[in-house]
Amino acid sequence: MKPVRVGICGLGTVGGGTFNVLTRNADDIARRAGRPIVIEQVAHRSIHPDCDITGINATSDVFEVATNPNVDVLVELIGGYDIARELVLTAIENGKHVVTANKALIAVHGNEIFKAAHEKGVIVAFEAAVAGGIPVIKSLREGLGANRIEWVAGIINGTGNYILTHMRDEGRAFEDVLAEAQALGYAESDPTFDVEGIDAAHKLTILASIAYGVPLQFEKAFTEGISRITAEDVEQADNLGYVIKHLGISKRTDQGLELRVHPTLIPKERLLANVHGVKMPSR
Amino acid sequence: MKPVRVGICGLGTVGGGTFNVLTRNADDIARRAGRPIVIEQVAHRSIHPDCDITGINATSDVFEVATNPNVDVLVELIGGYDIARELVLTAIENGKHVVTANKALIAVHGNEIFKAAHEKGVIVAFEAAVAGGIPVIKSLREGLGANRIEWVAGIINGTGNYILTHMRDEGRAFEDVLAEAQALGYAESDPTFDVEGIDAAHKLTILASIAYGVPLQFEKAFTEGISRITAEDVEQADNLGYVIKHLGISKRTDQGLELRVHPTLIPKERLLANVHGVKMPSR
Repeated sequence: MKPVRVGICGLGTVGGGTFNVLTRNADDIARRAGRPIVIEQVAHRSIHPDCDITGINATSDVFEVATNPNVDVLVELIGGYDIARELVLTAIENGKHVVTANKALIAVHGNEIFKAAHEKGVIVAFEAAVAGGIPVIKSLREGLGANRIEWVAGIINGTGNYILTHMRDEGRAFEDVLAEAQALGYAESDPTFDVEGIDAAHKLTILASIAYGVPLQFEKAFTEGISRITAEDVEQADNLGYVIKHLGISKRTDQGLELRVHPTLIPKERLLANVHGVKMPSR
Repeated sequence: MKPVRVGICGLGTVGGGTFNVLTRNADDIARRAGRPIVIEQVAHRSIHPDCDITGINATSDVFEVATNPNVDVLVELIGGYDIARELVLTAIENGKHVVTANKALIAVHGNEIFKAAHEKGVIVAFEAAVAGGIPVIKSLREGLGANRIEWVAGIINGTGNYILTHMRDEGRAFEDVLAEAQALGYAESDPTFDVEGIDAAHKLTILASIAYGVPLQFEKAFTEGISRITAEDVEQADNLGYVIKHLGISKRTDQGLELRVHPTLIPKERLLANVHGVKMPSR
């Protein structure tokens, strides 16, 4: 069957991993998806060391991919706002479907992007933008399509949860664990988005938009991070039988939708209190 | 747009609830699904008290629905093996899509049913057969479609987890909590499927088939229930820092796929050890 030809923009941790999965699992994917997925072109500044693009049509100009007539689907993994926005809109203008993991782009420019995609009749898919390892967007949009969703809440920033987990388990200070997370590559050199709750607010904005079928409204989310939480706060919470978790919470209320991102006290025995570290437990 | 016309067979707890949701949320569903879903006919022996079918075309013969030319989708919620199998095959033979929550039917007769549906070009959907409140089947099949799944494990029987939770929290005996669960309607008058692990084995069989893309093979699943677990077992586990949970586990191994359902010891701090009661925590 006619293959789907993708162009991957960005070959960092996410882009390189995507390239490797599409290459390594090509047969499984073709069988399960019903048609092969081939990598037509990649655009990159640098390449993740695990990623071998020998024999692949490569360019340093992402806009070449957005205008390449042989590309059916552009995969935007360069991150950021402005160039990513222009890249995605250019791809849409050229009739390409778009796949992106860029939560900031969707949360801030999503309404404009979705409108353009709708007018062009192309799809913008962004499952990996929220909880990359969990297909929560598909589950909300399709799996729970017949449900009236009253609230959505969860731990939606792995870096923050890594920091809170180690602060609690080891009684260490925020700055100390953050430095460790940066050294391990779990936290960016500029950790603002993660530790000030902006990343979580981006994700909550996207989840709420899908759960309630409303436009994206990032600017309306109350956003508080974990950077002011001290070892004493964590210890006091523990003495009182609670765990401090940073949650994204959205609810239907009489005044309309509520979007808030902030640290919360959760009773130790509750499920959310026992989600530890940077990702879902692997076993 | 042309509505989807469904016929619901069975109006018990699940069927009555389905009827009520489709009726109550009709507008939301039409908006989110892209076309209205109308109830063309219902077939039932008895009716759940919360369910008002005034004005609906009703029959006591489920096969009337399977052959009704005005029904596009037959919803099988009568349960059991033989009549349900005949009903579903008749609906397929008549070119109808089928939706069922019947895990026993799918686990035992699924291969035959899917083959018939494939030949007829109709869909058999069974999201509610496993973890009804969680779209895990769609997530495995579509959301994780590009993943090579190595293992699947979880608590997949609510009645059993209700019993284990109360045995632990209240130090009570299995028979005692089972009687309570039956009085509350969480357990069937014949609890064999739930407490002997058969229901969980049905569900695990379905999950494994989807996760690994293999035929259903219920007869190959190792199946052990919770009926022999004593209050002493639970207390001993607690003293050692563990919680007893009944899990369905399937793994890829060098010898092939492993399917097993049995009680397990899980460290108290682990996520699975903190899933309590009969359903996912509601907040």
